Amino acid sequence: MLLHKIAEVREKVKEWKKQGLTIGLVPTMGALHKGHLSLIKKSVDNCDKTVISVFVNPIQFCPGEDFEKYPRTLDADTKLAESAGVDIVFAPTPAEMYGEGHILSNDFLTYVVPPFFYTDKLCGKSRVGHFDGVCTVVNKLFNIVQPDYAFFGEKDRQQLIIIKKMVKDLNIPLEIIPCPIVREDDGLAMSSRNKYLNPEQRKEALVLKDILLNIKACYNSGIKDVEALTETAYKFLKSCHNLEYLEFRDKNDLELKKVADKDTIVFIAVKIGEVRLIDNISLDS
Amino acid sequence: MLLHKIAEVREKVKEWKKQGLTIGLVPTMGALHKGHLSLIKKSVDNCDKTVISVFVNPIQFCPGEDFEKYPRTLDADTKLAESAGVDIVFAPTPAEMYGEGHILSNDFLTYVVPPFFYTDKLCGKSRVGHFDGVCTVVNKLFNIVQPDYAFFGEKDRQQLIIIKKMVKDLNIPLEIIPCPIVREDDGLAMSSRNKYLNPEQRKEALVLKDILLNIKACYNSGIKDVEALTETAYKFLKSCHNLEYLEFRDKNDLELKKVADKDTIVFIAVKIGEVRLIDNISLDS
Repeated sequence: MLLHKIAEVREKVKEWKKQGLTIGLVPTMGALHKGHLSLIKKSVDNCDKTVISVFVNPIQFCPGEDFEKYPRTLDADTKLAESAGVDIVFAPTPAEMYGEGHILSNDFLTYVVPPFFYTDKLCGKSRVGHFDGVCTVVNKLFNIVQPDYAFFGEKDRQQLIIIKKMVKDLNIPLEIIPCPIVREDDGLAMSSRNKYLNPEQRKEALVLKDILLNIKACYNSGIKDVEALTETAYKFLKSCHNLEYLEFRDKNDLELKKVADKDTIVFIAVKIGEVRLIDNISLDS
Repeated sequence: MLLHKIAEVREKVKEWKKQGLTIGLVPTMGALHKGHLSLIKKSVDNCDKTVISVFVNPIQFCPGEDFEKYPRTLDADTKLAESAGVDIVFAPTPAEMYGEGHILSNDFLTYVVPPFFYTDKLCGKSRVGHFDGVCTVVNKLFNIVQPDYAFFGEKDRQQLIIIKKMVKDLNIPLEIIPCPIVREDDGLAMSSRNKYLNPEQRKEALVLKDILLNIKACYNSGIKDVEALTETAYKFLKSCHNLEYLEFRDKNDLELKKVADKDTIVFIAVKIGEVRLIDNISLDS
C-alpha cells in the first residue's frame, strides 16, 4: 500500500498496535537496490508488519549536493517493495514532512542534533549539517511509524553509529538492527549513487574495496599499527582517485585508533570525478 | 509508586498500554506547589494513569544558575503526588538519565534543539542553551513514558510554545495540554523559586502581576499600541525592580507585536535582588 500522508500511516499503525503486531521500519531515500532489499527482507522475516519510507530528505543535503538530481523512481520502488512483502510504502512530500512556506533551517524547525564528537569527522567533515538532517528526519519517522525495530545498512556506518547513539541518548523505545553491506559481484558496495558512474569510473570505483580488503588481509597477517596499515593503501591510488579520508575508528564511539583491533572499523571515502563514494570494513572476524 | 529507574517505568507503561489505558505525563523539577497540583489534577481527571517526573535537569541550567541550590523535596513531593492520585513518581538520578562519566555537553550527547527564532528572545536570551536542555529532557521523558497527554503550565509560556513546536516538528504522537497559571491569594504566580524571596522581596514581587493586569486593563479600555501599553508599566517600577524584559508577542510563534490583539501574550521578567521571576498574561478574553 502506497501512502503519502502522515495521518494515513498513523491510522494503520494504530490498528496494528491494537492487534499487538510488531512493526519494522526501513527508512530509505528510494532508488531501491539489493542493499535495501536485504534490509526489507530482514524486517519482513522478523516483524509482523513492515513499513518502508521513501523520502529524499531535503534537510540532509548540503548546498551544492545532489538533492535535485538524486534518482527518484517511486513506481519501481513501490512494486519492488510490495513484491518483497512490504505492507506500507510511505512516500511523503517535503511539504507533508516540514510544512509549507518556511525556510528549512534551524531558525524555524526543531532539529535533533547528534553530538559534535560523532559528526565532526569522516562524512560529517565535508557534509556539514548532514547528520543533523538525518537524525531529525529519522526521529520524525520513528514518531510517525512507532516501529519496534528499525533497519539500517552498515554501508552508511557513521550514520548507523550516530542513529544508535541518538536512540540511546533520547531513550527512543525501539531497537536498531544493523544489516551487512551488500556488494555487486565485483565487490563494489551497493549504492543509489553508483548510477552516476560512467563505465570507466565504474571500474575505478573498485579501488575502495581493494584498499579495504588489502588492509584487512594485512591486519589478519599481523600488522596492527594503523600508520603501517594506512600506507598499504597508497599503491592502489591513481590520479583519478581523490581520497577524501581513510581512517581507523572505534565501532561504537568513533574514537580514532592508533593500533587496530577487533573493535576497529576502517572508513574510506573517494571522489571519482564528481561522484563521491564511501565504503567501510570491520576488522572483527 | 516511587520509581528511580527508566526500565521500571517502561515495564509499567508496557503493562498499561497492553490494557489499552491512557497515560498522562506531568514533567516537573519537584518542589511541588499548587501550580503543579493543578496540572496533576487535570491529568488524573482525564487519563487512566498519571506519571509525574521529578528531575532537576542539569542540562537546562546555565553556568551560574541555581542548579545546586534548587529546592529538592522528594519525600514531600511523593506524598503530595500520591495523595493527588498520581500512579508513578519517576525520580531518576542525572546518571540514570545521561549516563556516567561523560561531560553533559553537545560534544557527547544528542540534543533536541528548538528553532533559534523561538529561543533567541525572552528567557532564552539570558538563559543560553536553556531550552535545548528542556527540549532534550522532555523528549527523553516522552520516549520513556509514551504518554497520550502531557501537561505544561502557562506560567512558563515560552517553554510551552517551544514544546508544542517540538511536538509538531518532530511528529511526536501525543497531545500537549496547557494549564492556566495558578496564583497566590495576592496574585503572585506560583513558582518553586518564590521560596528564594525574603519577606520584603515577596512584597515587591507583586510588581509583575501589577504591570500585567494594568496592561490588560488599558488594552480592554481600547489602547492597542504596544509602545503606549509598555509605557503604562513604568509607574510600577522601583529601583529594586530590575526589569529584564516586557514584551508583546504572538501566542503561537512568538513574533513581536506592534499592535496588541487577542493573539498577544505579554511577557515579563523581573529580577528582585538575586531572584529572577517571570509572569505573562494573554490579552484574549
